[in-house]
Amino acid sequence: MAKMEDIVSLCKRRGFIFPGSDVYGGMAGTWDFGPLGVLLKRKIMDEWWNYWVDQRDDMYGVDAAIIMNPRTWVASGHVGTFADPLVECKDCKNRFRADKIADGISESVTTEEFLATHTKCPICGKENWGPIRKFNMMFSTHVGAVLPEDVNENPELAEKGIAYLRPETAQGIFTNYKNIVDTIYPDMPFGIAQQGKAFRNEISPRDFILRDRECSQMEIEYFVAPGTWEENFEKLRKEQHEFLEGVMGLPVEKIHELEVPEEDRAHYSKRTIDFMFDYPNGEEELMGLAYRTDFDLANIQRESGKKMEYRDKNTNETYIPHVIEPSIGVERLMLAVLASAYSEEEDRIVLKLPENLAPYRFCVSPLLKNKPELVAKAREVYEILKKKYTFVTWDDSGNIGKRYKKQDEIGTPKCVVIDFDTLEDGTVTVRDRDTTEQVRVRVEEL
Amino acid sequence: MAKMEDIVSLCKRRGFIFPGSDVYGGMAGTWDFGPLGVLLKRKIMDEWWNYWVDQRDDMYGVDAAIIMNPRTWVASGHVGTFADPLVECKDCKNRFRADKIADGISESVTTEEFLATHTKCPICGKENWGPIRKFNMMFSTHVGAVLPEDVNENPELAEKGIAYLRPETAQGIFTNYKNIVDTIYPDMPFGIAQQGKAFRNEISPRDFILRDRECSQMEIEYFVAPGTWEENFEKLRKEQHEFLEGVMGLPVEKIHELEVPEEDRAHYSKRTIDFMFDYPNGEEELMGLAYRTDFDLANIQRESGKKMEYRDKNTNETYIPHVIEPSIGVERLMLAVLASAYSEEEDRIVLKLPENLAPYRFCVSPLLKNKPELVAKAREVYEILKKKYTFVTWDDSGNIGKRYKKQDEIGTPKCVVIDFDTLEDGTVTVRDRDTTEQVRVRVEEL
Repeated sequence: MAKMEDIVSLCKRRGFIFPGSDVYGGMAGTWDFGPLGVLLKRKIMDEWWNYWVDQRDDMYGVDAAIIMNPRTWVASGHVGTFADPLVECKDCKNRFRADKIADGISESVTTEEFLATHTKCPICGKENWGPIRKFNMMFSTHVGAVLPEDVNENPELAEKGIAYLRPETAQGIFTNYKNIVDTIYPDMPFGIAQQGKAFRNEISPRDFILRDRECSQMEIEYFVAPGTWEENFEKLRKEQHEFLEGVMGLPVEKIHELEVPEEDRAHYSKRTIDFMFDYPNGEEELMGLAYRTDFDLANIQRESGKKMEYRDKNTNETYIPHVIEPSIGVERLMLAVLASAYSEEEDRIVLKLPENLAPYRFCVSPLLKNKPELVAKAREVYEILKKKYTFVTWDDSGNIGKRYKKQDEIGTPKCVVIDFDTLEDGTVTVRDRDTTEQVRVRVEEL
Repeated sequence: MAKMEDIVSLCKRRGFIFPGSDVYGGMAGTWDFGPLGVLLKRKIMDEWWNYWVDQRDDMYGVDAAIIMNPRTWVASGHVGTFADPLVECKDCKNRFRADKIADGISESVTTEEFLATHTKCPICGKENWGPIRKFNMMFSTHVGAVLPEDVNENPELAEKGIAYLRPETAQGIFTNYKNIVDTIYPDMPFGIAQQGKAFRNEISPRDFILRDRECSQMEIEYFVAPGTWEENFEKLRKEQHEFLEGVMGLPVEKIHELEVPEEDRAHYSKRTIDFMFDYPNGEEELMGLAYRTDFDLANIQRESGKKMEYRDKNTNETYIPHVIEPSIGVERLMLAVLASAYSEEEDRIVLKLPENLAPYRFCVSPLLKNKPELVAKAREVYEILKKKYTFVTWDDSGNIGKRYKKQDEIGTPKCVVIDFDTLEDGTVTVRDRDTTEQVRVRVEEL
């Protein structure tokens, strides 16, 4: 099994993922995607969109603003309850998420329960804790023309125009449900899909891109007639496996369904399956599939005073649809893809990425850089492949061994090398990433 | 020329663009993209990425976090100077951006200059103004575990962990320049491209999606050897035209280059061309092409203490690269595309979108919905086209006239109708969006 630090190191060394604001010493909980990372991330997101939206007849896209009317987060319950248990070491003044530093306690831990665990401070080793306090994880900001000096004069203005960065993309779907029903008239069941950023002010971001403060989510809210949720839940569950295993190429044996027991589920959820994945640092949630009942639409109806009912075109029956939510974080998925692909062999590191996700499908290079006839022929082959496959890279640096090493590390399935025989008989060497085997192939057969 | 309100109305009616948080009465300056808008927006963004990055050998992608280390905005000058002149009507207490309500003054207007214009309040009509104050347009937030009660105890903590939502994507490119040079070793000249959200706390958002508080930018920083900027500037200028006119299909006669005079340019820019566009409400900036010298990299070098030099592989010469920046807002481009496509004819409204941008390329429908043999044949044709073109929609609602009307309004180039002749001879009716002409075509020829 790959170690997390090896993956982090490869990602930085090869231009996949850098610490956010690296040049200024970083910005905790943020990550920047470099040229290779962008290629991989775009392919993951495009494959998701293609599988779940473009190829289907029952899915519609939405792209809502990150800054939403703050009533959204009152109705959803985030203003009241989207909080982690924060505890401070009175000795060293460091702050922690209580349920992450003590074993066997939950997010709703009380001060007494926490003190009973006799946890020591992970920084200074003392056991001198303040009380558990609730820390709301939403980032807040102010919208509109209020100046700092206005607030000094009138402190109440600090509350004026307060808004939040969305902590999940789901509410951008629910708040658009009515507009979409009124303009598109979809048949039941149907889904609304969204990709976009979400923000959580994690107390202790950790585990590379697994628990970050800024992430990209891919969420679907699937609207169904009440009473039909079970069959639709099963259908989406099967499709999730097909997507994770078939499209993303994740190994079946690393994915584990966790049927979340009632006491651990959100209060509105009647059933939740967490799709767990064997990450380098242990099993963690990769994605969730939750039956949310009519909780969100009913809340919006109450808060907005607008009817969220759907009228069935055939039966004329009206009802508030029930919702099943398949939800996944792009970075979590990307780390699962990278960890599954990462392998160390005797003399090389190789990313065995599936062909549809590899940043480049081919690397083209001339055997020798200082032979103009080889370079010219190689450029010709490069142009042909680039036109056909788009994701083709050129490499004429160092010697051929170094180039293979680099292409292995960035996961390029095939290296095409142009040598003197190419000039004679039109064949090139094609070297396979996974087997390292080399075959001679005519250029036209590529 | 299309009127703005007609475009806004079509966009809402047909599911392109809704006011942000519409169900809660909106959130000023934000917009949500509905199913049709997402299709159009994705195609615009994908075409840009394909043209500027995937099809080229000299461009690399980056995807940086929105929340960056705040030193970024000190170095870039945004903390000090990214401010608009705010003025308050002392009668009705409404606030305005001074340079937008008075004619002939600039962003750096003084109180005296503004009062001399004798502008009346656009809301109450009085002329009773407070002083001009500088309002910084960056949204701020707090990162890390600081609770409201901590700030009450110790007001200094309000400044701790302050961070900003990026007001431009450009700095996410500059701050990654060094990591990219150190991992990818690009040859000069090369560009780094980014697509992503940027946020500006506009005092008065207006003109639909033209001046919003949250927008998507597509920016390139093109790094060149000092002394070569002029030739590269010309090259990028030509490519911009090719992209706007050739790929986006914007009419040449609506695009005007504005050579920005020295006194209006940012202090670091030696040359800027604004590409202006004839929008429904008048000429406005569509995109910018700016020569930024080595201003940004030199600032980062000073602020971070890290060398931003590039070493030429052939000459071993080292220098801080100079930068040319083609920058465009997705929403501005989308509005230009929509406004150019919108046309009202005697008996219909039609969006004459270029084929590569139209949400759907084909609409397939059975002539009559209640004839199962027609519906079955139409589904068959639909499946064939969907497999081949992906962006194909099905419509069996209302009568055929209503379907054409709808498809015209969402810009579908071809409507394919299956009737009884189809069952006999395998031909379908193909109706052209722009000419409304209908021809009979064999299914295989589609």
